[in-house]
Amino acid sequence: MADADPIARLVHRLGRLPGIGEKSAMRLAFHILRAPEAEARELARAIIEVHEKIRLCSTCCHLTERDPCDICSAPRRDRHTVCVVAQPTDLLALERGGHYRGLYHVLHGVLSPLDGVGPDDLRIAALMRRLGPAEPDSQVHEVILATSPSVEGEATAMYLARLIKPLGVKVSRIASGVPIGGELEYVDQVTLTRALGDRREI
Amino acid sequence: MADADPIARLVHRLGRLPGIGEKSAMRLAFHILRAPEAEARELARAIIEVHEKIRLCSTCCHLTERDPCDICSAPRRDRHTVCVVAQPTDLLALERGGHYRGLYHVLHGVLSPLDGVGPDDLRIAALMRRLGPAEPDSQVHEVILATSPSVEGEATAMYLARLIKPLGVKVSRIASGVPIGGELEYVDQVTLTRALGDRREI
Repeated sequence: MADADPIARLVHRLGRLPGIGEKSAMRLAFHILRAPEAEARELARAIIEVHEKIRLCSTCCHLTERDPCDICSAPRRDRHTVCVVAQPTDLLALERGGHYRGLYHVLHGVLSPLDGVGPDDLRIAALMRRLGPAEPDSQVHEVILATSPSVEGEATAMYLARLIKPLGVKVSRIASGVPIGGELEYVDQVTLTRALGDRREI
Repeated sequence: MADADPIARLVHRLGRLPGIGEKSAMRLAFHILRAPEAEARELARAIIEVHEKIRLCSTCCHLTERDPCDICSAPRRDRHTVCVVAQPTDLLALERGGHYRGLYHVLHGVLSPLDGVGPDDLRIAALMRRLGPAEPDSQVHEVILATSPSVEGEATAMYLARLIKPLGVKVSRIASGVPIGGELEYVDQVTLTRALGDRREI
């Protein structure tokens, strides 16, 4: 099939999505072709719509249709606590948990010098504005650093802790350890060591 | 996230594609959101375009922009041989092999009574027109039945063989056996039995 072919073009476009190889792209393309035209149009419209309608919340940098976002403007959330996450998907994962009632701040990445991601590439300035003296009615008492316990996530958390602590705001880090329901036998050594080191008296 | 949300809508639409679960759909949606808008528009356009531009070749029922398709209109192909396949993807797989120089016929499915797929749901009438007496200048000497060696594929091949043989056209079936490069040890019993039964003198 020539590259000028609409099917080849769709396969090529689908193959650029993460986790979609050549064979999956082919399968998806033929599925789209076989599906009713209305369904294909709906998919195309949904793809364009996220770009047209979704922006960043000017307060917490989460993805939203309305600014401020639903979480920042919810009257019942605890405005004293801000949970810092790397990505919007992390925020959604925490919200699915359903127990956290504070606010969030989305960094849109983690520090990663090898990939050329420095502090200016993350939404750190916006976070500091929420906490800093420039915001005299700031009500934030605690910042929870909820980046992943990976090398980059830990480095980002350490970096933010050093920035935030001088402001007199309490800084905490999510716990690391053996996952609930996990088998000790299958947990990696680093996690086990951490779980032992961070043991709590009961 | 409300269902009226553009992201939720895109996740829902992507999740309807085959092999894309909820988590994959979410990952794809956020990738599309992070990608440049031009790239998202290209993907959306490619999805709509396959529906607008692709039709079935009136001769072989393969997907094509032009009718007759590139294969049916190629002057160098052997017009005496028609290879019958279930899906356009099967045709593409055979073409990738690069050794077959005849024509094709795409059934767009296989007989599957349990799923309610009968002979009228496949492009069998179009195949018979290519072979039948209504086409006095028909040059087809051999029909190769290249449906998969599954229950439905075999049944479809048997059904077609019974239809075509009375026309005086040679009918053949692709060989089944141990795949080239495959280890005997890992080949299933049915395939092994078939490979033994269909052994050839060398």
